[in-house]
Amino acid sequence: MAIQDEMRQVAEGAREASRTLSRMPTEIKDRALKEMAERLLQQAGWLMQENEKDVAFAKNLGLSPAMIDRLTLKESTIRDMADGILEVASLPDPVGKVTSMWRRPNGLLVGRMRIPLGVIGIIYESRPNVTADAAALCLKSGNAVILRGGSEAIHSNIAIGRLLKDVLKETSLPEAAIQVVETTDREAVYELLQLEEYIDLIIPRGGEDLIRAVVRQSRIPVIKHYKGVCHVFVDADADLEMAAKICLNAKIQRPGVCNAMETLLVHREAAPRFLPELARKLRESHVVIRGCEETCALISDAEQATEADWYREYLDLVLSIRVVGGIEEAMDHIARYGSLHTESIVTNDYANAQRFLNEVNSSTVLVNASTRFSDGFQLGLGAEIGISTTKLHAYGPMGLEELTTTKFIVYGNGQVRT
Amino acid sequence: MAIQDEMRQVAEGAREASRTLSRMPTEIKDRALKEMAERLLQQAGWLMQENEKDVAFAKNLGLSPAMIDRLTLKESTIRDMADGILEVASLPDPVGKVTSMWRRPNGLLVGRMRIPLGVIGIIYESRPNVTADAAALCLKSGNAVILRGGSEAIHSNIAIGRLLKDVLKETSLPEAAIQVVETTDREAVYELLQLEEYIDLIIPRGGEDLIRAVVRQSRIPVIKHYKGVCHVFVDADADLEMAAKICLNAKIQRPGVCNAMETLLVHREAAPRFLPELARKLRESHVVIRGCEETCALISDAEQATEADWYREYLDLVLSIRVVGGIEEAMDHIARYGSLHTESIVTNDYANAQRFLNEVNSSTVLVNASTRFSDGFQLGLGAEIGISTTKLHAYGPMGLEELTTTKFIVYGNGQVRT
Repeated sequence: MAIQDEMRQVAEGAREASRTLSRMPTEIKDRALKEMAERLLQQAGWLMQENEKDVAFAKNLGLSPAMIDRLTLKESTIRDMADGILEVASLPDPVGKVTSMWRRPNGLLVGRMRIPLGVIGIIYESRPNVTADAAALCLKSGNAVILRGGSEAIHSNIAIGRLLKDVLKETSLPEAAIQVVETTDREAVYELLQLEEYIDLIIPRGGEDLIRAVVRQSRIPVIKHYKGVCHVFVDADADLEMAAKICLNAKIQRPGVCNAMETLLVHREAAPRFLPELARKLRESHVVIRGCEETCALISDAEQATEADWYREYLDLVLSIRVVGGIEEAMDHIARYGSLHTESIVTNDYANAQRFLNEVNSSTVLVNASTRFSDGFQLGLGAEIGISTTKLHAYGPMGLEELTTTKFIVYGNGQVRT
Repeated sequence: MAIQDEMRQVAEGAREASRTLSRMPTEIKDRALKEMAERLLQQAGWLMQENEKDVAFAKNLGLSPAMIDRLTLKESTIRDMADGILEVASLPDPVGKVTSMWRRPNGLLVGRMRIPLGVIGIIYESRPNVTADAAALCLKSGNAVILRGGSEAIHSNIAIGRLLKDVLKETSLPEAAIQVVETTDREAVYELLQLEEYIDLIIPRGGEDLIRAVVRQSRIPVIKHYKGVCHVFVDADADLEMAAKICLNAKIQRPGVCNAMETLLVHREAAPRFLPELARKLRESHVVIRGCEETCALISDAEQATEADWYREYLDLVLSIRVVGGIEEAMDHIARYGSLHTESIVTNDYANAQRFLNEVNSSTVLVNASTRFSDGFQLGLGAEIGISTTKLHAYGPMGLEELTTTKFIVYGNGQVRT
């Protein structure tokens, strides 16, 4: 079959399945999820065998050890996948929730009810656990899902998909509710991205290049973030001990993720007391500093930052530091160089804390806390399907509710318009 | 200046203005809106003079009387525009509202706060009152707006835009918060639709062809509905007098709008008692009926409906009627031929009413009420910027809240991740 027809068949199947799924009781969805977790554990041996094919191929290709590590399914990775699915089963079902209801003067009772989006396409790279995570979140929220992973993980993804589909069949759920695209033909992605009449939302997960390619090609709405250039602003009035603790956590605890701090802004009044001591601690953790002129004057081994550095998402033990004249200059810097992801202010000044929260319109804005909390689990959403820095539909970490929309429901007793 | 540079300058100006506007107090926005309403009334004579240029041109071109009517600014149209702006001024400001707030186990206080989307582009046709309506809604919700109307209304749109901008200047609001594109070059639309780094949302208002062209060209998210093929299902158990009243209202009260009924589905048990009498009343209002075979057997002068008729949005005194075996068949028909806009069931059967509300996932679903209530004002949103049948971001009629998004705000006292 031509790739175009094949993808259309996949998408039509998903659309059909989504209609059944949208009215499936929570109980049945949860029973299937629990069974899926069980099945992954039972079939761990077979999964690792299938995964071994991908790993061997990746080694032959000479992929980096880091990439091979992300690709490899171990007993512990499979256990984590199963736990993740059980966690999703335990969350409240957003579907059918009436979020508000009001009475109109003519007696109509009007409300908004959560419903699934329909069909969601996930385009992702290397890590096969995304297959199980994303499938579970979509199933719980009543959406059919089409999963298109990278060719380097194809055997692993197909194997996980087969197990999940077996469970769907056994629990009388439509099999096409979870589909792993089995071809590694690159055209398949392009073809999927054209099928706006069947697919409601595309979520790309991976590097900026992958995401930009998806946005360029898609006719379907895409929810994404390109990068996270997260800022911490240490105000004149900050508790400097707290500020150091937050900065170290934001930079070092996990430097390779999108909510790590990339740029530190320090109030001119606090800089001489704060920066030399912070630099010492950063040095202990092998963090390289790229500073503005004033920063370099205070930190002897800092490199001079270039204009391009202020836009940079290092995802590494590197930090840009700029000394600023106050909150106004800090917010201007964030507006100009930021990525609308996550920003934090450390301050004891009440007015500045409120101003920062109100005026910085990044997707997560914090006072006196690490940027690393910008995460669906940490913020209390119970799960995370991705992070959006596009303001439409969802902004910031996305949980189960963000995989739904609301329709208007209206209870009348014969009302007509006059 | 090349058209590309001109549009980029417009969009950059809007982006800059949106930052100022996003933190503008409600008072100042409302004062400007009231002054704008006043100004339109004061300058009604001049507006009608400018409008006369468009009308004369349209007459020369031989446009239809209906189009010329929509284009013409009369004293009463201008008064309606002013009233519309005052109404927007009286609505609550959605910006800054904290929609929910919760405490995390580590003490973090996490909430979601409404913020403006940023910059909104409106692409519309013929009716110059959209210029004032859309500008008012965007201003109130803290968004900068770029208005691109049709070339047939260019003098009217520029004139209205000038008055609104004068008020912005006088009230110290950024002038670029409301911009009317002054060139009629068709390239301008294409260029605007590429500027995803400056414009957050595009709302096209007009016919299906305009909307499809915008969706095809845009890199920016578009909220739209192509058409409204709205259904009423009269169940076996319906109060037939109520059903007739609702059907007549849904079809006849204003047939040219998207929430008018286009297809009537009637339960086989009710059809013989219901359809002949309804047909008589429809005939009095000159409604042409296109029916299925069973319908034609019950209504002598009904035409035979073709397969294509079930997909059709007539926007006219024409109605498709199909007899169905029950709610299941009615919902299948809606899923297949519907446009996700608005559907209503007329029934006294409690279980069927609940099933229809829960399982039909159109953007507005009603029980025992006319489809004509699917409208931002009628549902109680206070205003309407458009209707969406795309499930992302907004689904159904859109009011001021739908021109905002939410960011996460977090109050901490030194929390870091472990």
